[in-house]
Amino acid sequence: MTIRVAIAGARGKMGSEAVKTVCNRDGMELVAALDYKHVGESLAELEMFPPNLDVPIFTDLTQLITETNPDVLIDLTNPQSVYEHTKVAMLHNVRTVVGTTGFTDEQLEELTVLAKENKIGCIIAPNFAIGAILMMKFAKEAAKYMPNIEIIELHHDRKLDAPSGTAKKTAQMIAEVREERKQGHEFEEETMVGARGADFEGMRIHSVRLPGLVAHQEVLFGGDGQMLTIRHDSYNRESFMGGVMFCVETVMTLEELVYGLENIL
Amino acid sequence: MTIRVAIAGARGKMGSEAVKTVCNRDGMELVAALDYKHVGESLAELEMFPPNLDVPIFTDLTQLITETNPDVLIDLTNPQSVYEHTKVAMLHNVRTVVGTTGFTDEQLEELTVLAKENKIGCIIAPNFAIGAILMMKFAKEAAKYMPNIEIIELHHDRKLDAPSGTAKKTAQMIAEVREERKQGHEFEEETMVGARGADFEGMRIHSVRLPGLVAHQEVLFGGDGQMLTIRHDSYNRESFMGGVMFCVETVMTLEELVYGLENIL
Amino acid sequence: MTIRVAIAGARGKMGSEAVKTVCNRDGMELVAALDYKHVGESLAELEMFPPNLDVPIFTDLTQLITETNPDVLIDLTNPQSVYEHTKVAMLHNVRTVVGTTGFTDEQLEELTVLAKENKIGCIIAPNFAIGAILMMKFAKEAAKYMPNIEIIELHHDRKLDAPSGTAKKTAQMIAEVREERKQGHEFEEETMVGARGADFEGMRIHSVRLPGLVAHQEVLFGGDGQMLTIRHDSYNRESFMGGVMFCVETVMTLEELVYGLENIL
Amino acid sequence: MTIRVAIAGARGKMGSEAVKTVCNRDGMELVAALDYKHVGESLAELEMFPPNLDVPIFTDLTQLITETNPDVLIDLTNPQSVYEHTKVAMLHNVRTVVGTTGFTDEQLEELTVLAKENKIGCIIAPNFAIGAILMMKFAKEAAKYMPNIEIIELHHDRKLDAPSGTAKKTAQMIAEVREERKQGHEFEEETMVGARGADFEGMRIHSVRLPGLVAHQEVLFGGDGQMLTIRHDSYNRESFMGGVMFCVETVMTLEELVYGLENIL
Repeated sequence: MTIRVAIAGARGKMGSEAVKTVCNRDGMELVAALDYKHVGESLAELEMFPPNLDVPIFTDLTQLITETNPDVLIDLTNPQSVYEHTKVAMLHNVRTVVGTTGFTDEQLEELTVLAKENKIGCIIAPNFAIGAILMMKFAKEAAKYMPNIEIIELHHDRKLDAPSGTAKKTAQMIAEVREERKQGHEFEEETMVGARGADFEGMRIHSVRLPGLVAHQEVLFGGDGQMLTIRHDSYNRESFMGGVMFCVETVMTLEELVYGLENIL
Repeated sequence: MTIRVAIAGARGKMGSEAVKTVCNRDGMELVAALDYKHVGESLAELEMFPPNLDVPIFTDLTQLITETNPDVLIDLTNPQSVYEHTKVAMLHNVRTVVGTTGFTDEQLEELTVLAKENKIGCIIAPNFAIGAILMMKFAKEAAKYMPNIEIIELHHDRKLDAPSGTAKKTAQMIAEVREERKQGHEFEEETMVGARGADFEGMRIHSVRLPGLVAHQEVLFGGDGQMLTIRHDSYNRESFMGGVMFCVETVMTLEELVYGLENIL
Repeated sequence: MTIRVAIAGARGKMGSEAVKTVCNRDGMELVAALDYKHVGESLAELEMFPPNLDVPIFTDLTQLITETNPDVLIDLTNPQSVYEHTKVAMLHNVRTVVGTTGFTDEQLEELTVLAKENKIGCIIAPNFAIGAILMMKFAKEAAKYMPNIEIIELHHDRKLDAPSGTAKKTAQMIAEVREERKQGHEFEEETMVGARGADFEGMRIHSVRLPGLVAHQEVLFGGDGQMLTIRHDSYNRESFMGGVMFCVETVMTLEELVYGLENIL
Repeated sequence: MTIRVAIAGARGKMGSEAVKTVCNRDGMELVAALDYKHVGESLAELEMFPPNLDVPIFTDLTQLITETNPDVLIDLTNPQSVYEHTKVAMLHNVRTVVGTTGFTDEQLEELTVLAKENKIGCIIAPNFAIGAILMMKFAKEAAKYMPNIEIIELHHDRKLDAPSGTAKKTAQMIAEVREERKQGHEFEEETMVGARGADFEGMRIHSVRLPGLVAHQEVLFGGDGQMLTIRHDSYNRESFMGGVMFCVETVMTLEELVYGLENIL
């Protein structure tokens, strides 16, 4: 069986990667694109795509569904559009794979109920990099047995915030199973301010920023005479596509909404 | 409640570490040592232990149990002794934590049945380093989603065999969930023999041997635009003691035999 | 002072990066492009460059030099063209920065003599990644004090040959200062063929190939109770541009031919 | 030729390692030990040494030199004793290898002059781990070409101060060749205080403290599309002995005082 896929946000960075990936994937067919404005009849008209990519573009989701009958909508637009799209898709029995953050709790709750009522799969994933999700999942698991933990995340130096969202999310997931505890020597002293990093319930988080880097993180667990390290390196945007494809395949088997890839890996 | 512990093999490298660790552990008390020959009345008589370590030494396990009433026997001797000890212990309702390999399948089967009949906990662990067990467990899990895998293990250069037992065990555990597949380029060529390492169902294993090293391993998972790395560093023998203590505490709650720490982590 | 730069091979992968980099660099001006066929009057006509990139294209190097008077020619074409270009450039007192391999010994010798006679700088660099050059240079230096060495190189799985050229070059540079010696245990045994990697004068080389990776290498030095590791990660083609710019600036101060960046770092 | 060695501080942790190492070293002979109090006639009398270690113990250095005629004195005691010992040794034409810090500038100056006047070798080394010295030396060299640098040092959690002395020393050595520069994004923001580590002339230093670790450091250099990493792992005290032996051999060829192993590597 071939999964019929529609993509919203096809002209974006992630979206155009998704177009390419779906087209090259066995078992999937790209049947339509959704855009918020009229940019042409077909992706083939856009310079960024090959001239033989004959995939119709719609500005109305209901019409897209009626005319092209997709199984799954991959939505890589913004939170507000995604919310509306997802509701419409669910009501028409179309599964959705959503790659955005920024939903309100109310929106998430409403979509969760809607998915359950309609017995229709929906995956919302703030992060599609399967390796990064596994890192967080394993970190949470390891923390039960090795609760002395430090996180080092390394990014290019154009990044504005420190620590990274992934580092915070990792620490939060660990904190769900780890009792807060001070780490390091009781009387340890910083002779240079900040050397010991940021403190999250006793775990330490260190943010490295250097030109050339992409997105990297390691979680270090120290124990008697040993260390366990879980590291993820993201080298480019392709790292998300494997996760998107995994979600498209998995959402076909779901009858509810899942938030976060860690819950289906 | 204090767990009453007896140790077989107290004069060995692992055993003497275990003596020290149990003595310093809250919630545990060392009540007896078992030796195969008469080396004294008490550990205090042995040069390797502090002169106030007043723990009686027995050469007969039944007598040891009768006189000191232990909850758990930690057995760090050899396979044949362990087999006999474990049977005796189980029949007297004493739990065992065993740190040896080399049982025959028949012995394992017999002990498994005995444990179930007597509803008595027993843990047999070829490897007590919790970090190493977690590494293997996570590697098996990650392999489901990222099946392109190479293993690099690094040891001191006095090690005779390559690859290490842990590397093989890791590869075997992964192979349980990963379909055999050729890795690397279809037409890849070694211009120097051995460069691509050993082949295990398509996974590659590389063994580094250098003076100064202790025992280290990393498992690398490559995927689209990303890499996941799980690494364990063992710095000294202490790395096993956390696992032994974890087993002593866990075996108190079991009513069956468990083979391999990965099954209770 | 602004360095006037011409580029040969501007339409290639490396060349087009070089165009971009020179244009954005303080202290440099792109004054001409050299092509082997007539592709237009100016880079602005080519789709791959911005429409305001008003840089004239020549098919004849002598004419290019006469009309645009460059200080340095960056040549990123093929060995045969480079050889001819470099001779012409030298005779017209234009310095060259060459990023190709494949010269014959005779050609190299001839160019070396020519540079010396004309007192004109020329840098020929098989590898422009400064970090990789430093890794090799440091590895050679460290080998004098820590002669037990293993090399692990890691590349994407579309690479055909193993080990990589950089790994071989590293081993060769080390071998210049390190006496051949067997490493590992005298009686070590491979229970799986290839586990100990390739042997180069006793050093071991291991090649990892995984999807997602780019180009990475680490050189490990083991000694009594310690390990020194020198690692280089190349994430994308930009990694070469810093080296090219460094060469353009350095070649202005040279009066001879230098082969290999390691000789000017 | 065999180098005749005397050791001061033979009963200390470092000293007793040195005794063992010298005794096992081809080309060296342990001829005497110097102690500040009378602990016996010979090392053989001390429990910590084998009963056949027939090396005489002296409490007076002049007498030691007269009676046993050493080539080199390895001094692993405290700064004040070392200062006196070194002066006496130099005046008697005995070379010294000193493993302590804490000299005043005046003392260092005086010993330097004395060495020069007497044309006698003396090496004072705050750190004997050759790998660590190489790391610092290479870091200083790499900083000239890749000035965006962060240091991560990792130690066991019984360490009181952060950052480590080695991290500070590394940063200072780098600062000698690197112009101060702000790193990271101009508008970067710590959403958790301390995440970006300690600031040393724009370089960032991060201190990890975890149980089980020993002493580790990595220096990261980021550049366009690439990263260079220099890492040192110290696993145990043996890591210093290679450096001590190297010094004993090297000091035989010196006619002046050298402070810091980095100046003779």
